[in-house]
Amino acid sequence: MSSNRDIDTLIQMMAKLPGLGPRSARRAVLHLIAKRELKLTPLAEMMQRVAATARECTVCGNIGTAEICDICAAPKRANGLLCVVEDVADLWAMERGGAFQGRYHVLGGTLSALDQVGPEQLRIPALVGRIDSEQISEVILALGATIDGQTTAHYIADQIEGRVRLTSLAQGVPIGGELDYLDDGTISAALSARRDI
Amino acid sequence: MSSNRDIDTLIQMMAKLPGLGPRSARRAVLHLIAKRELKLTPLAEMMQRVAATARECTVCGNIGTAEICDICAAPKRANGLLCVVEDVADLWAMERGGAFQGRYHVLGGTLSALDQVGPEQLRIPALVGRIDSEQISEVILALGATIDGQTTAHYIADQIEGRVRLTSLAQGVPIGGELDYLDDGTISAALSARRDI
Ligand SMILES: [Zn+2]
Ligand SMILES: [Zn+2]
Repeated sequence: MSSNRDIDTLIQMMAKLPGLGPRSARRAVLHLIAKRELKLTPLAEMMQRVAATARECTVCGNIGTAEICDICAAPKRANGLLCVVEDVADLWAMERGGAFQGRYHVLGGTLSALDQVGPEQLRIPALVGRIDSEQISEVILALGATIDGQTTAHYIADQIEGRVRLTSLAQGVPIGGELDYLDDGTISAALSARRDI
Repeated sequence: MSSNRDIDTLIQMMAKLPGLGPRSARRAVLHLIAKRELKLTPLAEMMQRVAATARECTVCGNIGTAEICDICAAPKRANGLLCVVEDVADLWAMERGGAFQGRYHVLGGTLSALDQVGPEQLRIPALVGRIDSEQISEVILALGATIDGQTTAHYIADQIEGRVRLTSLAQGVPIGGELDYLDDGTISAALSARRDI
């Protein structure tokens, strides 16, 4: 497309990133080339740095630069609460909310017969181990309201039932959400979990 | 967001690229970190390579790695036709179409009173010079059907009127385009340029 092989390769690499496609990759690469000293070189250097230092926390699966992430290393977060999330993006979303003060366990996906993802691929055995070793009193399942997310929640519930309190995030209308834009499942869930005001 | 400064900086850099935002930048960076040897390091290396070699063609403004790009260097493309485009992305879009066999002139934007972009910023003097030096017989204005694009087309027309044949791309319904999705301006333009079948 650009008649230059390196530039084409760079565009193809960018186009494979989640959220980008061929068109946005072309625009991003042209933007970076137009400002190569100011943008392209610093971006490449920061990528090299992150590639050299980023790693998974051996306890929870969060991404950081230490063997044990800041959250797992903070004594004040050992409050007996363990929040189970599908991936690191969800962990970061919970942290942005700022409402949760316990620790996390990143599954690394959801059970999926279709994609042949079983419990071993998901760090579920490690989750069961943490309940004892970290004196967890409550496990909060913050999994997606999808079929795979709910299948995974049920499987985890079976594994740890009776050993700790087990909860999940409330389902309902998002703050600022207009009913008109919500799917029927969310509306029924919000209705059956209705509260007195 | 990630509690790690380098990773946060990388996400912020990615979030500023056209077509990305904070959420897609986070997902892209997590995806790259998860496959750092396979994706993050090769992407960083390709960016370094492109940063070191990419340059603007001194004749037309296309991006490549030589002082004069492949299109300008190809003798068979010196057919007297010169296609004027706003930016390199548009030049590449024309090339993907494969219908144009002449040369290009990249303006680098459109005239804009609001953004204080005048003719000197747009390589319009260079365009006027090329008409004589390259024995151009027809200039095709392939500018966007926006107010700024059309203002720029009028300005260029004033500069070169009477010296060469001057044409512009036809306006109308895109192939596969459904009328229902087109804006009114496109429909009126297509109607007034209607042809016998
Ligand atoms: Zn951790
Ligand atoms: Zn050129």
